[in-house]
Amino acid sequence: MKQYKVAVLGATGAVGREMIKILEERNFPVSELIPLASARSAGSVIPFRGKDVVVREVTPDCFGGIDIVLGAAPNKLAKEYAPHIVAAGAVFVDNSSAFRMDENVPLVIPEINPEDALKHHGIISNPNCSTIVSLVAVNALNKISPIQNMVVSTYQAVSGAGAGGPVELTEEVTAINEGRPVEPSVFPYQIAFNLIPQIGNFTENGYTAEEMKMQNEGRKILHLPELLVGCTCVRVPVYRSHSISITLRTETPISVADAQKAISEAAGCRLVDNPEAKEYPMPIDTSDQDIVFVGRIRKDLTSENGISLWCCGDQVRKGAATNTIQIAELLIK
Amino acid sequence: MKQYKVAVLGATGAVGREMIKILEERNFPVSELIPLASARSAGSVIPFRGKDVVVREVTPDCFGGIDIVLGAAPNKLAKEYAPHIVAAGAVFVDNSSAFRMDENVPLVIPEINPEDALKHHGIISNPNCSTIVSLVAVNALNKISPIQNMVVSTYQAVSGAGAGGPVELTEEVTAINEGRPVEPSVFPYQIAFNLIPQIGNFTENGYTAEEMKMQNEGRKILHLPELLVGCTCVRVPVYRSHSISITLRTETPISVADAQKAISEAAGCRLVDNPEAKEYPMPIDTSDQDIVFVGRIRKDLTSENGISLWCCGDQVRKGAATNTIQIAELLIK
Repeated sequence: MKQYKVAVLGATGAVGREMIKILEERNFPVSELIPLASARSAGSVIPFRGKDVVVREVTPDCFGGIDIVLGAAPNKLAKEYAPHIVAAGAVFVDNSSAFRMDENVPLVIPEINPEDALKHHGIISNPNCSTIVSLVAVNALNKISPIQNMVVSTYQAVSGAGAGGPVELTEEVTAINEGRPVEPSVFPYQIAFNLIPQIGNFTENGYTAEEMKMQNEGRKILHLPELLVGCTCVRVPVYRSHSISITLRTETPISVADAQKAISEAAGCRLVDNPEAKEYPMPIDTSDQDIVFVGRIRKDLTSENGISLWCCGDQVRKGAATNTIQIAELLIK
Repeated sequence: MKQYKVAVLGATGAVGREMIKILEERNFPVSELIPLASARSAGSVIPFRGKDVVVREVTPDCFGGIDIVLGAAPNKLAKEYAPHIVAAGAVFVDNSSAFRMDENVPLVIPEINPEDALKHHGIISNPNCSTIVSLVAVNALNKISPIQNMVVSTYQAVSGAGAGGPVELTEEVTAINEGRPVEPSVFPYQIAFNLIPQIGNFTENGYTAEEMKMQNEGRKILHLPELLVGCTCVRVPVYRSHSISITLRTETPISVADAQKAISEAAGCRLVDNPEAKEYPMPIDTSDQDIVFVGRIRKDLTSENGISLWCCGDQVRKGAATNTIQIAELLIK
C-alpha cells in the first residue's frame, strides 16, 4: 500500500493533536508525520505510533515532498501558507474557514458529498463543527425530500474554542467553589454555570459569523443553493460535544417513522430515540466518538412539512479532526 | 390599607420560600402569614419580617379565615386541597399545573392579561416558568402583529426542578473534581457538564408535557386559540434563570427596530441588545431579578414575517413566585 508524507499545520492545538491521534487510530498510511507549528511550539514533541515526533517550525519552504497537509491553524495562517502548500504539490485539507466559501475549493463531509473532494485544485475545506454535526444528522431527511429551511439553536461545548476553553471552564468552577473572582479570557464572560449567546463576531444582519456558516456552508455541502437557515449559536458549560436543536421543513412531509428509519440507516449517524426509556442523545454520551447521535424526532407543530430533532456529536472529532482525516482518506482511495 | 391573611401551601420548597421572601420584599399587606407544608416539615420556622413563623401542617380544615392561598405544592396536593380552599372562601393562586388548562380557571401573567384574573371562581393559575419568561418577552410583538407560530428551544436552569436541583449540580461538580462517581437522583442523568433533552414526561406526540405547555398555555394567556408552538426543552448546568431561543412568525412583518422599541417599552422586559458591545441577555445577569432580559433581536432568515430573539429570566422569581404574588396584587387592587 502506498504511504504518504503527512504534515499537520497547527499540530500543537486541540484539533491538531486530535488529528494526529486519529491518523494513528484509523491507521492512515503515513510514511512520515511532520507536525508543524509556530516557532514558539517548535522543538516540542508529539507522540505518534509509540515514538516522539519533534514539532518543526512552519516556514514557506517547508512543504517540499509532502503529500497531504492537514490544516488545524487559524484562518490567517491557512491563508498565508496555502499558496506555498499548493505550489509544493501537496493537497491542503484545511479545517479553518479561510477557503470554505471559495468556489474553487470543495467543502466536504464524506458521508454527504464525497464526490466533491475529487474536484479539488489543491485545497479542500473542512466545514464548521456545528454544521458538520447538524448536516450529518439531517442529510438522510434531505434525501427523502429536499430541505427548504431550518431553524436551529445550538448548545456548543467549550472545547469548540480550542484547548483553552476546557481549561477556563475548570478554572472558573474551581474559583467559584473557592469564592474567588472569575477571570474570563478565552470567553468574553464567565461560562461556568452560565450561557453565552455569542460565538464568533457579529455580522451586519445581527447574526454571528458562526450562525451564518450553518446556512452558507449548508447550501454548498447539500447542493441546495436556496436553503434558508436561521441559527442561534450559544456556548454552554459542557466540555465536549456540541448539541443542536433543529426544526426543518422539507418540500413534502416526512413521517416520524420514515425519518427514524432513514437516520438509523444513514452513514455517520446513530438513532437514539426511545423517549419512553429515557433514551435520547446527550453530549456526555457522544464525546470521544465519531458518530452523531440523533433523537427526539417528532413532527414540527408549526408546519405540515416540518420535523424537529435533537442531535449531539463530538465537535473536536467528527466536527473537525475526524472529518479532515476522512477527507484525506477519500484522496488516497 | 386592608391587610390580608395569606397562606403559602408548600412553604418549605424552593418556590414557597421565594414567595415568602417576595411577599416581604414587595410589602404585600399581610396581616398574618401562614406557612403550610406536609406533616414532615411542620414545626420548622421560616423568617418573615424579622420574625420566625412556624410552619403548620396542611389539613383540609386549616383554611378558615384565610384570604389568599399561594400554591407552591405539586399538582396532587393542589388538586387535593383546592376544594377546601375555595369552600373556605379563600382565593387559591396556584403555581402547579393542575388547573392551568381548566376553562373556569384564569391563567395569568399580570403584564399580559391582568383582566383575566378578576374572572376567577376561587382559583387562578400561574403559568409554567418557561412560558412566563417567553411570553413576557414576545407579548409586545404580539401587540404589533398577532403571533402565528413560534419555534422555541429552551436552556433551563437546574433550580427549575426545585431546591434539590442546585444541590445535585453542586454535588456532581464536586464528585467529578474528586474523581468520585456521579449519582443522579433529581435528574435522570448527570447534569454537570451535560445537557438533558427531557423535562417532564413524554406525551403521545413525542413532545414532553413541559414542551406542550408553551403552546397550550400560550394560546390561553395570549388569547390566540390558533397559536402553534414547536418547543424543545433542555436542562442545562446553570443554577438559576431559564434562557430561551425563540423564532416567531407574525401575521405581518415586524422590523427589528420596531421590535426593539416595543420590547424596550414593554412591562416586565429589559432590552439588552447591543451585540457590537457584547451586550445580550445571559442567565447570570438575570438571576434574583423579576425582569426578563431580551436581546439578539434579528430578522428570521427562514420567513418574511419572522423575528428571532433570545431571552433570559429568573424562573424561580418571575417564572413562579413573583408572578404569583403579582396575581395576588391584582386581586387586592
